[in-house]
Amino acid sequence: MSFTAPVKDMLFVLKELAGIDEVAALPGFEDAGFETAQAVLEEAAKLCGEVLAPLNVEGDRAPSSWRDGEVTATPGFKAAFDQFAEGGWQGLQHPAEFGGQELPKLIGTPCNEMVNAANLSFALCPLLTDGAIEALLTAGTEEQKARYVPKLISGEWTGTMNLTEPQAGSDLALVRSRAEPQADGSYRVFGTKIFITWGEHDMAKNIVHLVLARVPNAPEGVKGISLFIVPKFLVNEDGSLGARNDVHCVSIEHKLGIKASPTAVLQYGDNGGAIGYLVGEENRGLEYMFVMMNAARFGVGTQGVAIAERAYQQAAAFAKERVQSRPVDGSAKQPVTIVHHPDVRRMLATMRSMTEGARALAYVAASHCDIAHRHPDEGVRAQHQAIYEFLVPIVKGWSTEMANEVTSLGVQVHGGMGFIEETGAAQHYRDARILAIYEGTTAIQANDLIGRKTARDGGAIAKALLDEVAKTAESLAEVGGAAAASMRLQLEQGAQALSRVVDFMIENVKRDPNGTFMGSVPYLKLAGIVLCGWQLGRALLVAQRKLADDPSFYGAKIAMAQFYAEHVLSQANGLATAALGARGAEGVLALTEDQF
Amino acid sequence: MSFTAPVKDMLFVLKELAGIDEVAALPGFEDAGFETAQAVLEEAAKLCGEVLAPLNVEGDRAPSSWRDGEVTATPGFKAAFDQFAEGGWQGLQHPAEFGGQELPKLIGTPCNEMVNAANLSFALCPLLTDGAIEALLTAGTEEQKARYVPKLISGEWTGTMNLTEPQAGSDLALVRSRAEPQADGSYRVFGTKIFITWGEHDMAKNIVHLVLARVPNAPEGVKGISLFIVPKFLVNEDGSLGARNDVHCVSIEHKLGIKASPTAVLQYGDNGGAIGYLVGEENRGLEYMFVMMNAARFGVGTQGVAIAERAYQQAAAFAKERVQSRPVDGSAKQPVTIVHHPDVRRMLATMRSMTEGARALAYVAASHCDIAHRHPDEGVRAQHQAIYEFLVPIVKGWSTEMANEVTSLGVQVHGGMGFIEETGAAQHYRDARILAIYEGTTAIQANDLIGRKTARDGGAIAKALLDEVAKTAESLAEVGGAAAASMRLQLEQGAQALSRVVDFMIENVKRDPNGTFMGSVPYLKLAGIVLCGWQLGRALLVAQRKLADDPSFYGAKIAMAQFYAEHVLSQANGLATAALGARGAEGVLALTEDQF
Repeated sequence: MSFTAPVKDMLFVLKELAGIDEVAALPGFEDAGFETAQAVLEEAAKLCGEVLAPLNVEGDRAPSSWRDGEVTATPGFKAAFDQFAEGGWQGLQHPAEFGGQELPKLIGTPCNEMVNAANLSFALCPLLTDGAIEALLTAGTEEQKARYVPKLISGEWTGTMNLTEPQAGSDLALVRSRAEPQADGSYRVFGTKIFITWGEHDMAKNIVHLVLARVPNAPEGVKGISLFIVPKFLVNEDGSLGARNDVHCVSIEHKLGIKASPTAVLQYGDNGGAIGYLVGEENRGLEYMFVMMNAARFGVGTQGVAIAERAYQQAAAFAKERVQSRPVDGSAKQPVTIVHHPDVRRMLATMRSMTEGARALAYVAASHCDIAHRHPDEGVRAQHQAIYEFLVPIVKGWSTEMANEVTSLGVQVHGGMGFIEETGAAQHYRDARILAIYEGTTAIQANDLIGRKTARDGGAIAKALLDEVAKTAESLAEVGGAAAASMRLQLEQGAQALSRVVDFMIENVKRDPNGTFMGSVPYLKLAGIVLCGWQLGRALLVAQRKLADDPSFYGAKIAMAQFYAEHVLSQANGLATAALGARGAEGVLALTEDQF
Repeated sequence: MSFTAPVKDMLFVLKELAGIDEVAALPGFEDAGFETAQAVLEEAAKLCGEVLAPLNVEGDRAPSSWRDGEVTATPGFKAAFDQFAEGGWQGLQHPAEFGGQELPKLIGTPCNEMVNAANLSFALCPLLTDGAIEALLTAGTEEQKARYVPKLISGEWTGTMNLTEPQAGSDLALVRSRAEPQADGSYRVFGTKIFITWGEHDMAKNIVHLVLARVPNAPEGVKGISLFIVPKFLVNEDGSLGARNDVHCVSIEHKLGIKASPTAVLQYGDNGGAIGYLVGEENRGLEYMFVMMNAARFGVGTQGVAIAERAYQQAAAFAKERVQSRPVDGSAKQPVTIVHHPDVRRMLATMRSMTEGARALAYVAASHCDIAHRHPDEGVRAQHQAIYEFLVPIVKGWSTEMANEVTSLGVQVHGGMGFIEETGAAQHYRDARILAIYEGTTAIQANDLIGRKTARDGGAIAKALLDEVAKTAESLAEVGGAAAASMRLQLEQGAQALSRVVDFMIENVKRDPNGTFMGSVPYLKLAGIVLCGWQLGRALLVAQRKLADDPSFYGAKIAMAQFYAEHVLSQANGLATAALGARGAEGVLALTEDQF
């Protein structure tokens, strides 16, 4: 159950597909080219393989535990977090001004991926802290930034996002927590927040909660929500820790997976009110939270890739070890390792090609994000920002749905052993299951994809990406071999299917919202399958060109691309049919509640 | 988390799709018509809803436990098993001669389904006992039958199947347990068996283990395996229990799901040899075991339907309760129950239509099995037996893969609550995961489907079924409405895709076994999707005709059929592409071990 970060695969994507050279040409990223990436990834891989990965099983067997309001992390986690913090990993992508390394997202993403692959529960703490840092950098005052951000970056403190309440999950309009302004400019916060990841723990000296709440007389709905900093311990003028604030962890959840990561119920203000500080302006909290959420959604997409990679590595190792049955082609009289059996290869190739496709799409998105932030030309920035924002719900939604399938195949490759907890395959299956739910379910991502990302610009970005897909298909036509032919065929059919659905969504979303949104998840999956296939098509072109340099590595890339085309991209038309399916006053939309 | 058996849906399938009237016309089944079915199902539903279902959560929280070789079942299970036994449920399908009720499989199957839906862990004990009874009836001596079968039917004793060993999972050729003949005609059995479901427990007075082992000088491989009865307690001449036999439970597994069902490691012969009795002839054990296995495989397919139904009921109930977000069509200004949201409907309809399709196919298969056993005409019997045997790997493989998807959607409908164990949705997801693995993984089912069930008869049965599908499509052409049109279109396309794959498999299985078997699981899924779609198409025809009689019930059937056509059947072409994908000396089959 060891884990070795797939550094070679990651660097292949950075260099050949995601344009690290282009990113390194951006102002401020001059030192962040391929060689830096290689050095950073190798260093991160060491920490992940040696420190974080071995704790993953332990976290499942001895989850974090609650007692009298205090949460104790799994044994070993605090020491590992200290090492993580001392290595400067929390600050990888954050401004040098506050102690960060200010590296591109394109380098930060593979590092995050491997931390998550090594230990998903552990990785959630830095992921949430990243979100808090981003929100403070976006909307905090200079004083707030100076007070909180350096300690979050150093790992002395950690951060959380407090959105959900018992009645307000996907629907933040229902948030009821309230914040009462005080004479000194601070607020008193009251309410119950649930599902707060790493909402209480003993790995850091303080926890900076970012909390959504309503001020008195705020408008109803999402336009009346404000964002507050509520530190677990108040912070004195000199930065030292003061009194314990009135926020308390009343319980943690008993979950299907990611058990080492405490999921807290936090009670604010039971003893007079938790002291909070407004971030930005009143009633604009959701807007700021969306900054965190976009980063966090992308981060969760990366988690999907990560857990899929971990499950693949474990399944492949098992398949090379486990001896069972003679080969179906009669090539041996004795039982062989199961990696020789065609269906095991089908499962492993499904796992790996889906993981590689989703990884490539995520890194490409990260690269767009970097250009959107740093490019000197405003128009270029805007275009790349739009592409990044289009890709975020796909990276989040598709990578996490993919992770459910891949971790399930990981169990299946193990046969009966996969169902026994000691094997470890089942942990990945359980851990992965939250990814398509938190930070916005797949349906929420799909709604975002249709509404804000496709319809709002009349499909401009979607069509621009489809043009790129078409160019890749044309390039594939110029290359010989069965793999390129399969990929070209499936990519063209997939792009046509996607184009048809995009047109449909734009045309119908206002006229028939119910019918359109019933096809939203099939649309998201279709977009994910086609855009990941596009990346694998691009990988195939590179691999064909460089095959002689490293036949084993590039040969596998070609085989995976062909497999993906035939086994995954081939699902595109079916998804389009579902996306365009029964609507309006007929079918399941017309059933009454009682008919369910 | 209550459960109400879907008796109305079940009776609809029995009457309209699976031909209960035809079964009731068979010799010996004269009293087993629709009214009997109705009475039996309603009685079973009571037991399941009131006694077994409430224990399901308890079994997950307080699994059966091992101590010093003894296993104690979850509190409440023994009393429930007593009620189950006293009600005569174990004997439902077994011969009256031995105390059974001798009802058709077509009536037994819905009863089994509801027992499994109520409590999967509990239901495994009767399921394995059924297998033991079948094996004894098939190959046991009259004396063996008289000694063991009545007590197994009465529930005084239970039965197990002992196949797997640490090195012999899917590959029974690797079985190493041995049996040494004794002067008195008995044998001494030695070896280690793992994954023995309900292999040790305190719910019954004795456990009758059926064990695969090798006699001295037996041929290598599967043709050298014999079957033995090894009772936990030896049975005296008068039927009373004698000495404790030398078979001991050394541990039970810590599993992902079905935790109340003890999965035992059994050690045979550590103290001189476990006394065993040969069943049938030496070296023919696997043949007899296949009798049990076919029944057990069908039973596991039923489990897939069952857990899917349970997950659907829970998700639908939650969706009608949970209030979140305003409707996307602006039809209300306030948040509504989530059953009104289009994507929640999509998920519920996916769950329900897949479950209904798989249920219908299973019951149709059961009906073929009844005719195969009872029809006076030998030719008719043979034809129906062949159809039943063709359908068994599909019912097993497809219903269980479907259950993984449906229980996952069940979690998703619950959002964040789905990941919290207290909600109960996660238990179904975990429990379901074993179904596509035990009694032969999906790959094993798919190999059986290609080899013994498709290629051996040159595709005769497959083509005969495809002819029936075509007839249903023709009938749909005569009915108006969007639902029938969608179903007809997708059914025709699905049947064409399946037909193409069947031809391919027959043509290539000998010439290119690796390439062919790499498409085996896509073939199985394609067959499952199309044949279940066929059943839903037939249901739609009935529902259209009877719509005015019960608009709510039949209206839902029409909506589900249309939904399935567009969202599930539409996957057929993609699966065909995968089944016909890259083969031979290229692609992933050509990769070396190191390339994985």
